[in-house]
Amino acid sequence: MAELAQEVIAVIGGTGAEGSGLAWRWARAGLQVIVGSRSAERGQAAADELNQRLGRLAVRGADNLGASQMASIIVLSVPYESQSAILESIRPAVAGKVVVTLVAPLLGEKKGRYTPPPGGSAALEAQAQLGSDATVVAAFQNVGAHHLIDADHAIECDVLVCGDARNDRAIAVALAAAAGLRGVHAGVLANAAVAEGMTAVLVAINAAYKVRGAGIRITGLPAGELP
Amino acid sequence: MAELAQEVIAVIGGTGAEGSGLAWRWARAGLQVIVGSRSAERGQAAADELNQRLGRLAVRGADNLGASQMASIIVLSVPYESQSAILESIRPAVAGKVVVTLVAPLLGEKKGRYTPPPGGSAALEAQAQLGSDATVVAAFQNVGAHHLIDADHAIECDVLVCGDARNDRAIAVALAAAAGLRGVHAGVLANAAVAEGMTAVLVAINAAYKVRGAGIRITGLPAGELP
Repeated sequence: MAELAQEVIAVIGGTGAEGSGLAWRWARAGLQVIVGSRSAERGQAAADELNQRLGRLAVRGADNLGASQMASIIVLSVPYESQSAILESIRPAVAGKVVVTLVAPLLGEKKGRYTPPPGGSAALEAQAQLGSDATVVAAFQNVGAHHLIDADHAIECDVLVCGDARNDRAIAVALAAAAGLRGVHAGVLANAAVAEGMTAVLVAINAAYKVRGAGIRITGLPAGELP
Repeated sequence: MAELAQEVIAVIGGTGAEGSGLAWRWARAGLQVIVGSRSAERGQAAADELNQRLGRLAVRGADNLGASQMASIIVLSVPYESQSAILESIRPAVAGKVVVTLVAPLLGEKKGRYTPPPGGSAALEAQAQLGSDATVVAAFQNVGAHHLIDADHAIECDVLVCGDARNDRAIAVALAAAAGLRGVHAGVLANAAVAEGMTAVLVAINAAYKVRGAGIRITGLPAGELP
């Protein structure tokens, strides 16, 4: 598993429910986390709140570009509609870094209807936009934000990790483990469309069975920690 | 759950591993099954083989059109490359019927890379081709054929069922139950792209972990039989 202790993780859009839930879990696991927001003030306010929950000063706040500059790993947790503009704003700071995107567009008139974005998937669009500057890996598309915020709730959901290089996927697999989740190598970045689409499917399943937190598990894998 | 005892199920492409595995499981559960093939002789030969395994005369064989004519439910278990031609050949017999498609195209140069077909998914292409003649429901995309053939193997995989009307999906949910699987209402037919893509993801996962039978489970649902 990739070693994360030396890494600095910027959570772009870290004031949202999913981003702050993950930031909190990672900080609790001892990782170095910076919460990024459009304004440095809001980033700092979110960091203050997480530090209060943690009971120590562990999380920093910054604007998205500043957070990206300080980080070695960039986690993109923004609405699909803002993705392109926010990527453009942090682009000067992403060269040579891995961008782990959590973005799952729900474009259908009904959120439970899978509607692929023009570029095939949000992750492929992000990679196309960043070009060879940075490497995009998709992960965490199917984990409900309310699960992440909940302190010691065991989350019944695997994290599909899609990316073209195994070493880069390993970073997201390690990030999943640090958040208390099982990351699963799920193939190339083109497969992110499936993980993104699964979010719409889970919305449909939640509606069909009147539940709130449907998730997915991969079966048939070796028990325990994956190789 | 939809009642299947009065139905006659034609498995088009029933000589393949997945089709014959399901035909065998359904016949074993007491359902009326016809195995369809391009030639009536091959359909009958496949039926004979299944009857021998079952120890009784339960399955009939026919050519694909004949099987479709005799059936009230049509199960499409053919290679994606043959889908359009075979649908055209059975089209005179599908009016007013539900067509449950198992087709999961693996179009990437590598089978573990999700590559959507031109129409978005094989299921949407089937529905577009049949128009309002018949109703297409997608199911069983993620169940490995070798699991189906294996007699009493408990299959660790849910069946995502996608279709525009709940009543039509209920038929595929009941077919899953008759085969010893849990069918899950997974939203509209547009969501079949996700189920089809998941097949490529499972191929990638099998390769990454050197396993043969990765599958998916939906978590967060009520225990036991689903409503």
